[in-house]
Amino acid sequence: MGVSLPRKELFDIPEGVIYLDGNSLGVLPKGAAARAQQTITEEWGAQLIRAWNSAGWMALPQVVGDRIADLIGAPAGSVATGDTLSIKVYQALAAALKMRPDRKVILSDNGNFPSDLYMAEGLIKTLDQGYTLRTPAPEEVMAAITEEVAVVMLTQVDYRSGRMHDMAAITQRAHEVGAVMIWDLAHSAGAVQLDMAASKAEFAVGCSYKYLNGGPGAPAFIYVRPDIVESIEPALSGWLGHDAPFAMELSYRPASATERMRVGTPPILQLAVLQEALTAWDGVDMAELRAASQRLSDLFITEVEKRCPMLTLASPREASTRGSQVSFAFEHGYLAMQAIIDRGVIGDFRAPNIMRFGFTPLYLDDADIIAAAEIIEEVMAKELWRAEKYNVRLRVT
Amino acid sequence: MGVSLPRKELFDIPEGVIYLDGNSLGVLPKGAAARAQQTITEEWGAQLIRAWNSAGWMALPQVVGDRIADLIGAPAGSVATGDTLSIKVYQALAAALKMRPDRKVILSDNGNFPSDLYMAEGLIKTLDQGYTLRTPAPEEVMAAITEEVAVVMLTQVDYRSGRMHDMAAITQRAHEVGAVMIWDLAHSAGAVQLDMAASKAEFAVGCSYKYLNGGPGAPAFIYVRPDIVESIEPALSGWLGHDAPFAMELSYRPASATERMRVGTPPILQLAVLQEALTAWDGVDMAELRAASQRLSDLFITEVEKRCPMLTLASPREASTRGSQVSFAFEHGYLAMQAIIDRGVIGDFRAPNIMRFGFTPLYLDDADIIAAAEIIEEVMAKELWRAEKYNVRLRVT
Repeated sequence: MGVSLPRKELFDIPEGVIYLDGNSLGVLPKGAAARAQQTITEEWGAQLIRAWNSAGWMALPQVVGDRIADLIGAPAGSVATGDTLSIKVYQALAAALKMRPDRKVILSDNGNFPSDLYMAEGLIKTLDQGYTLRTPAPEEVMAAITEEVAVVMLTQVDYRSGRMHDMAAITQRAHEVGAVMIWDLAHSAGAVQLDMAASKAEFAVGCSYKYLNGGPGAPAFIYVRPDIVESIEPALSGWLGHDAPFAMELSYRPASATERMRVGTPPILQLAVLQEALTAWDGVDMAELRAASQRLSDLFITEVEKRCPMLTLASPREASTRGSQVSFAFEHGYLAMQAIIDRGVIGDFRAPNIMRFGFTPLYLDDADIIAAAEIIEEVMAKELWRAEKYNVRLRVT
Repeated sequence: MGVSLPRKELFDIPEGVIYLDGNSLGVLPKGAAARAQQTITEEWGAQLIRAWNSAGWMALPQVVGDRIADLIGAPAGSVATGDTLSIKVYQALAAALKMRPDRKVILSDNGNFPSDLYMAEGLIKTLDQGYTLRTPAPEEVMAAITEEVAVVMLTQVDYRSGRMHDMAAITQRAHEVGAVMIWDLAHSAGAVQLDMAASKAEFAVGCSYKYLNGGPGAPAFIYVRPDIVESIEPALSGWLGHDAPFAMELSYRPASATERMRVGTPPILQLAVLQEALTAWDGVDMAELRAASQRLSDLFITEVEKRCPMLTLASPREASTRGSQVSFAFEHGYLAMQAIIDRGVIGDFRAPNIMRFGFTPLYLDDADIIAAAEIIEEVMAKELWRAEKYNVRLRVT
């Protein structure tokens, strides 16, 4: 048995807000501000350059990586933190392609987060060696895993629909044809149960500002399967991935294990706040968290569908094939979401017509879901989104 | 006339410390802690996902980039911020190589910061197209710029000795042979007068945690010459370098100008603190700053040489060929630096035998230099570094 959920007392959630956007930017953990103060005033300010040792800054990326490893079912030392998710995608893909030099196909899907596809495009152009990126529909991925494929690169949980790929089955299929597997866990880490070690996938990448509540621009992470990591020559071979960064050698020698996937100087302020945020996961049983996520999501679907016939479910109805979010399609979804946000229920919108709601069992309960559904009903039934003010808003998120 | 220097009142410097390591990690600006609190509590905490617009987070990388552009003599819109310096080196080098597809030589020097060389190595291995990295001694670089060279990639100010390359002459020579020029400004930005536009160099990269006082892990920056930027296809083509990130298109289309060199979600906490730190530069005349830097550095050399005959100057004696630091070589430099730091004068050590002292006219004056020299004299004359405690310290910085 884990600690009981939710743990609202650990977070500062604004009065009058029901936050269904933790899948985009998690809420503020109560300890974050104090931790930032400590890092800035007592460490940077008082200890200055010495803080790299005296305040544990040098070790921080690894300490945080080990905590994340635990959350994704990976062993200590197998996860490195830093950079952004896009950079980590590039690192994983560049390394994976080197593992299958005789194959020229990268397989993803057209539901993947665009930046993952863009990073693959950029790598393909940079290499200029005839690589192809294939992006079939998500449901056609399994059939598209053929012996031509060098790397299968997928985001487990679709950022728009919440549809979840079967990690075990796809990884197994990829390995059957000799392909390397990369999972993007952006919408998985802290949202669904993960066992990266059991999956046997070679790589996983993810971000920490969504379900992990690390704050805006919190660093990304990369997992590399321990039995292959020592053979990887990182494409982004920065000094903090060097075996002896301060020896100032002229040639690169990779650090042991996944530390070699580090690149430059770590973002200490962001890492410190993330480390604090991760304490909210202490004692959480991920099976219980997943069960709570499914209960909240199912309740939301039931409540919204019975109240709002004009909204069309754009997520899988079956909870086991869904991450921790629920989306509805609506022609005027952008405007409707603005009107809903104005009334204290914060979800978000993704082009072209997706109203997206995320469920974070760390700080949401059933009463929040009912209250949110009531507000959505009011906006939809009265067409409050037709108000003039929503039409003049700049559309930038 | 600029504001008078130093501006110690803008910084929180610990009592009893003379900080000669602002070339490694700048001191804490007084407003940084409050700015971090605001970003965390009032923006992240209270506005949540809406803060990307309501608190100006989306625009922050560009706003900070424009401020840095001004400090390096570059036009607004020509500098993008984010990631680490190593990543920005990779981006610049990958783009530069594409500009000279018929040439296979990258020219740097063996005094360059190792991570720049490592990133070049990683790119060369990743491309696997027969590229070579040449690293002659710094003084032999000019003669090594031949028509074989695709890219000249140098750090203007040597991280160990402070020796400064002649940016104008080298860039001109590179262009005479048809090579592309990349300058690393890690030890230049905020330290010496820069006029990137006049230099005609195609690329410059730098970091913001040294002389710019952005704090540990503050983001890096990249400058691209405006007349070539629209032809660049970024190797690291992330969604925030896309022309329309939130349109969620499946294919990459670069944003206009240097914005295309952005990659992933920006580190908002670090950027906010950096923006605050950059206000210390408001009204500073860079010619006056450079003059103050040379005066402080010359005074330090004079005072240390007359007091410490066992130390050998490892920096150019002529101020115009030196950045804003002075190094001395000493066989037991690591231990001596520990003893000096223990007495409140903070410099640092770089392998194999370099005691390094940085001069930051924003928060140092002549009295600091004299006081520092007196402490160094005491440590050296009495061989205080021979104390047992210095021999048991782990050597990690």
